[in-house]
Amino acid sequence: MVKTIIRFLIPLVTASVTVAADPLPSWQKSASKRSIIRFVESVTDEDKETFVPIADRIAVFDNDGTLWSEKPIYFQLAFAIDRVKDLADDHPEWKTEQPYKAVLENDLKTLVAGGHAALLKIMMATHAGMTTEEFEQITSDWINTARHPETGRLYSEMVYQPMLEVLQYLRENGFKTWIVSGGGIEFMRPWSQRVYGIPPEQVVGSSIKVKYEIRDSQPSLIRLPEIDFIDDKAGKPVAIHRFIGRRPLMAFGNSDGDLEMLQWATSGQRPGFALIVHHTDAAREAAYDRDSSVGRLDKALNEAKAKGWTVMDMKRDWKAIYPKAD
Amino acid sequence: MVKTIIRFLIPLVTASVTVAADPLPSWQKSASKRSIIRFVESVTDEDKETFVPIADRIAVFDNDGTLWSEKPIYFQLAFAIDRVKDLADDHPEWKTEQPYKAVLENDLKTLVAGGHAALLKIMMATHAGMTTEEFEQITSDWINTARHPETGRLYSEMVYQPMLEVLQYLRENGFKTWIVSGGGIEFMRPWSQRVYGIPPEQVVGSSIKVKYEIRDSQPSLIRLPEIDFIDDKAGKPVAIHRFIGRRPLMAFGNSDGDLEMLQWATSGQRPGFALIVHHTDAAREAAYDRDSSVGRLDKALNEAKAKGWTVMDMKRDWKAIYPKAD
Repeated sequence: MVKTIIRFLIPLVTASVTVAADPLPSWQKSASKRSIIRFVESVTDEDKETFVPIADRIAVFDNDGTLWSEKPIYFQLAFAIDRVKDLADDHPEWKTEQPYKAVLENDLKTLVAGGHAALLKIMMATHAGMTTEEFEQITSDWINTARHPETGRLYSEMVYQPMLEVLQYLRENGFKTWIVSGGGIEFMRPWSQRVYGIPPEQVVGSSIKVKYEIRDSQPSLIRLPEIDFIDDKAGKPVAIHRFIGRRPLMAFGNSDGDLEMLQWATSGQRPGFALIVHHTDAAREAAYDRDSSVGRLDKALNEAKAKGWTVMDMKRDWKAIYPKAD
Repeated sequence: MVKTIIRFLIPLVTASVTVAADPLPSWQKSASKRSIIRFVESVTDEDKETFVPIADRIAVFDNDGTLWSEKPIYFQLAFAIDRVKDLADDHPEWKTEQPYKAVLENDLKTLVAGGHAALLKIMMATHAGMTTEEFEQITSDWINTARHPETGRLYSEMVYQPMLEVLQYLRENGFKTWIVSGGGIEFMRPWSQRVYGIPPEQVVGSSIKVKYEIRDSQPSLIRLPEIDFIDDKAGKPVAIHRFIGRRPLMAFGNSDGDLEMLQWATSGQRPGFALIVHHTDAAREAAYDRDSSVGRLDKALNEAKAKGWTVMDMKRDWKAIYPKAD
């Protein structure tokens, strides 16, 4: 009899533990955390009017500054700079030619002063001219070895632990999670599954043109030094439409580049959810918003307040920033 | 004792029935059918060297002529023609202006004689100028009601039963199935899940440009009368790379427009599979290949034979063409 009772009790205990487990343990108890959970519960509860079938549970995430850090410079720019240095031996002219000279001399100030044109040159010199498979190998090698100049961590360990928990929590609730980033689509895809649990086909980003050609009787896709699409600002809803074909139910961003994506996710016939990651933690990560050149958050901050979107506060809301070091 | 034996036998019987069930019942016993099953078994058997993890099991399908019929004209062109007629009252000038006049007079010969430029005019007049949501409604309404001029069936019932079985069989074996079509991405997406079991985000196709704008304080995506991308020939591997980010393991096509996609799927480091649907059945569907203006199969037929791809024969290999009528 006692045994029987125990046999029945064990599953009950396990079940209640499961229900009680905190899906977002790195988030402080806060209005931000409650808003996420409340929204997810509202769309997954079949008895509620707000219920949304699994097929339509789409969540989109900006990458730079939303899923991983973006200071002191975008990590993809750090990749491009490392790549210029790797290729410098084959380009002796770079020693005297800008913007390459600035890069080789670690003179970020001159590089940045060159503006958009200088950065574009660097990007094209490092991101084009090889097959897609060669580029995949190059980015994979970099992400596995390159380290952040301030923390000494691998860049792939500079992802936000609380956001990894949100990704996981949403997937457990039937959401398909997507990245919709201004960063390069092919820069992110080789590691998105391992780092975020997001397969390459659910990564949307900026792209350069690619050309199919038969090289040495081998079909190849060659990366061309020409912009194909910039997945930023009004480009984000356009890309969401092109790649996903459905309006997202939830959108997460951190800068004015995400504003249109957040508008789009929250203006459908169904209620939508928008969250802004507000960088307020100079001690543990970085504090910046309206005046930052990278990741400026100004118009979107105003609109978030006006529309009642969730603006989380990194300093106040996150118990941890990065995953525990191994 | 007898009861016990029966209790053990029932699951065994069920299991053996499951194993023995034919996954492709509308296919005749043939080399084509065997080649599909043999390939799937080779990549799903963990004990084989040819095993491929589920994440990399990508199968791509052309649509027109591969998953559904394309005669007497592409079904999307039939949609455009119906649409011109629907819109004619708002455009009295179309009564005298080509190519609209030809469409309104059911004069396909004149329309086709106008070539690419005439068709493009018709496509832009009917596919652009509305929001993406309005266009989704228009295509959904059409696909639910329009009927094929020869069979009287709904166009969505002009899909190939044997190919529906292939789609289902592949998904049961861990494949993600994708459409990669020269047809319009937004023409196919509203009904791909219902008809093919393929969700909208796994539909790749040709596209026109789309613009984000706030109309009456409502965020909208407006369809512009401008080509964005033609997903045909060398565009197919490019689009596969952009949308899927991985080389497919299996590719299915029926025309020279699919050649590069078939090459791409079969030229990776892993063995790949390519199949061509050969239209040989004038009695039950249509017979055409090297000389057809729609769905020409010439170069791809030669290459298939040279490379040992599967060229199925509709007349010989398929027991049924379309699903049974309700």
